[in-house]
Amino acid sequence: MDKPNIVTCTAPVNIAVIKYWGKRDEELILPINSSLSVTLHQEQLKTTTTVATSRSFQEDRIWLNGKEEDITHPRLQSCLREIFLYSVRRLARKRRGDGDPSVDSTGLSHKVHICSVNNFPTAAGLASSAAGFACLVYTLARVFGVEGELSGIARQGSGSACRSMYGGFVQWIMGKKDDGKDSLAQQVEPETHWPELRILVLVASAERKPVGSTSGMQTSVQTSSLLKHRAESVVPGRMVEMIEAVQRKDFAAFAELTMKDSNQFHATCLDTYPPIFYLNSVSQQVISLVHRYNRHYGETRVAYTFDAGPNAVIFTLQQHVPEFVQVVQHFFPPETNGGQFFKGLPVNHAALSEELKQAIGLEPMPKGISYIISTKAGPGPCVVEDPTLHLLGSTGLPKNTV
Amino acid sequence: MDKPNIVTCTAPVNIAVIKYWGKRDEELILPINSSLSVTLHQEQLKTTTTVATSRSFQEDRIWLNGKEEDITHPRLQSCLREIFLYSVRRLARKRRGDGDPSVDSTGLSHKVHICSVNNFPTAAGLASSAAGFACLVYTLARVFGVEGELSGIARQGSGSACRSMYGGFVQWIMGKKDDGKDSLAQQVEPETHWPELRILVLVASAERKPVGSTSGMQTSVQTSSLLKHRAESVVPGRMVEMIEAVQRKDFAAFAELTMKDSNQFHATCLDTYPPIFYLNSVSQQVISLVHRYNRHYGETRVAYTFDAGPNAVIFTLQQHVPEFVQVVQHFFPPETNGGQFFKGLPVNHAALSEELKQAIGLEPMPKGISYIISTKAGPGPCVVEDPTLHLLGSTGLPKNTV
Repeated sequence: MDKPNIVTCTAPVNIAVIKYWGKRDEELILPINSSLSVTLHQEQLKTTTTVATSRSFQEDRIWLNGKEEDITHPRLQSCLREIFLYSVRRLARKRRGDGDPSVDSTGLSHKVHICSVNNFPTAAGLASSAAGFACLVYTLARVFGVEGELSGIARQGSGSACRSMYGGFVQWIMGKKDDGKDSLAQQVEPETHWPELRILVLVASAERKPVGSTSGMQTSVQTSSLLKHRAESVVPGRMVEMIEAVQRKDFAAFAELTMKDSNQFHATCLDTYPPIFYLNSVSQQVISLVHRYNRHYGETRVAYTFDAGPNAVIFTLQQHVPEFVQVVQHFFPPETNGGQFFKGLPVNHAALSEELKQAIGLEPMPKGISYIISTKAGPGPCVVEDPTLHLLGSTGLPKNTV
Repeated sequence: MDKPNIVTCTAPVNIAVIKYWGKRDEELILPINSSLSVTLHQEQLKTTTTVATSRSFQEDRIWLNGKEEDITHPRLQSCLREIFLYSVRRLARKRRGDGDPSVDSTGLSHKVHICSVNNFPTAAGLASSAAGFACLVYTLARVFGVEGELSGIARQGSGSACRSMYGGFVQWIMGKKDDGKDSLAQQVEPETHWPELRILVLVASAERKPVGSTSGMQTSVQTSSLLKHRAESVVPGRMVEMIEAVQRKDFAAFAELTMKDSNQFHATCLDTYPPIFYLNSVSQQVISLVHRYNRHYGETRVAYTFDAGPNAVIFTLQQHVPEFVQVVQHFFPPETNGGQFFKGLPVNHAALSEELKQAIGLEPMPKGISYIISTKAGPGPCVVEDPTLHLLGSTGLPKNTV
């Protein structure tokens, strides 16, 4: 058996602060508005993907989180097709350039094996498809020698995956062209730009699976007149404001716009017919908690944002993290025997004043939040150089099949 | 002591199907959009108000639900002032007309005593201010001989009170004038128009008092761009559609528009900053239940609408009431010792098929709903002729002070 060509990469999760909701083209995944996100650090949340190619492989195969899945999934095929296309074009250019006909060393005729795992539970309800497709496209591109702009390919796997192709603060410019060639992600500021910014993922103990985002946004586009207004008349101005807030590192402006945009996204879900609810009673309590906390201090120290699920993502500055996590723990008392409540970046202990507790004055909700992941902004996809970390062995099969 | 002049009237509650949310003038209570409501039958829900005037009264006084309240409340004073003004003008006209200077028999110089009670618990969270102000204005008008259009006066007590001045299906035309003279209610169809229509009030066991509607709508007008869009670009078309649906007695069209408009109102609350939540987990479950019930039958048999609180108001046709209340009772099992679950119009018993229960497939929420009031569309304010029903005795004090 031929030794396979193996590449492993990692890619990050991103969390939108100006939300993407609604496509103008389902096939190409072109959005009805631009969006902006913060890339989360891969030390806490990442996808790792190994791609292997070999003359000996009989068919394309994929394993996700230890389970073999159907490689014919249309969006997976979109990404594979695009990478092959780019690679073929590159080869054609190369041939024309140096006249060397022997450059089919990238294994274009070989079958691929793909293996991908997340370092966080899928059940946590963290949008893993963005990191997953970003990682797949980044890794395939390495294998097949495709260079340059890849976010347009990742976008065709999962819209928000295009934003996971860069670190730091990233905008997805909606574009205007029908073929989607100008619907691309772009870094606004790198991850080093705002070192004090901290991100807390409050993983809510969800009772039931919410409406999926693909079908949810379809229904919203078809039925919500508020969504149309938002996309056309509200988001363009907010993109400008948000980019300025990030560039100035103006936390209050960043935080308020983040909260308003999350609320407006969920408002358009409620204006959908039949309505879609992603915020449950835990989410509502987190929202109240944040506003009361900020009101107590007379300044915006903390912001929330929610995607298509009940988990809250909190933005704050480093100096406020110790107290705020204590506040969360007080108003969402964890299970006494439920494992670690704080995960990720270490958090110093802080005391909680009676005055603050009373100022917030909410009824504690036991077990509403399972755990908190403390993280920060991080870099885009990376190549893993250490071959012992490949997820596929020299036979082209997963090293640890569950 | 002089025998007081005593008049007693009753007025109904109304429930909006195209919602009023937001004022363009706080003082005059002029709305940013027109609205449309159904007047509920007074047999189930009404306010009764007695007004007495006497030369012997020392001061204006008011008792609400057995408790003396502050008569200097600005909106109460608005209504009193307007009625006096109309009465003075009427007298002036009369004097000019018949030259009789002795017509000050309406007691304009006398102090008033006002006593008002609801036949439903205030704690039920049913907007009682609409019925209360409608009844106050209607009764005062009788006492002071004011005739003609009264909804513009009731509006100045509580916006939605203007719609309680008529029975059946009522629109509140927003008007354009700065002085509000054209911001009036108008009957679209009388209560006899659609005899099959039934209304169920699902009284939710609310945990906490929500944000009041006056301050809530102020914040919404100031902060929600979606509300502005709704008022200017969505509601005008919906008013036309809703009036047509009512006139045609097209239940599916009426029901769908009712649900969409309730959802859009709550969407604008969520787009408010800080956001306002009136729908809790019980409300969300009622919404799911209604959509699943309709989906099961492949037609829109039932509609929900929610005001500034968690209670659901359900519209359906007479023939579907028995089954639907069984569905509600199944998915919101009442307290076994919690008193009567069904109130109001008698409801026939119906069996509930396993198929229907499974098609709905929600997790039952014990005690989520306290009780159901079954009612229908009803008439506008009425005079109570029987003097034994006056709430104030011949001394001008409440007959039954709590």
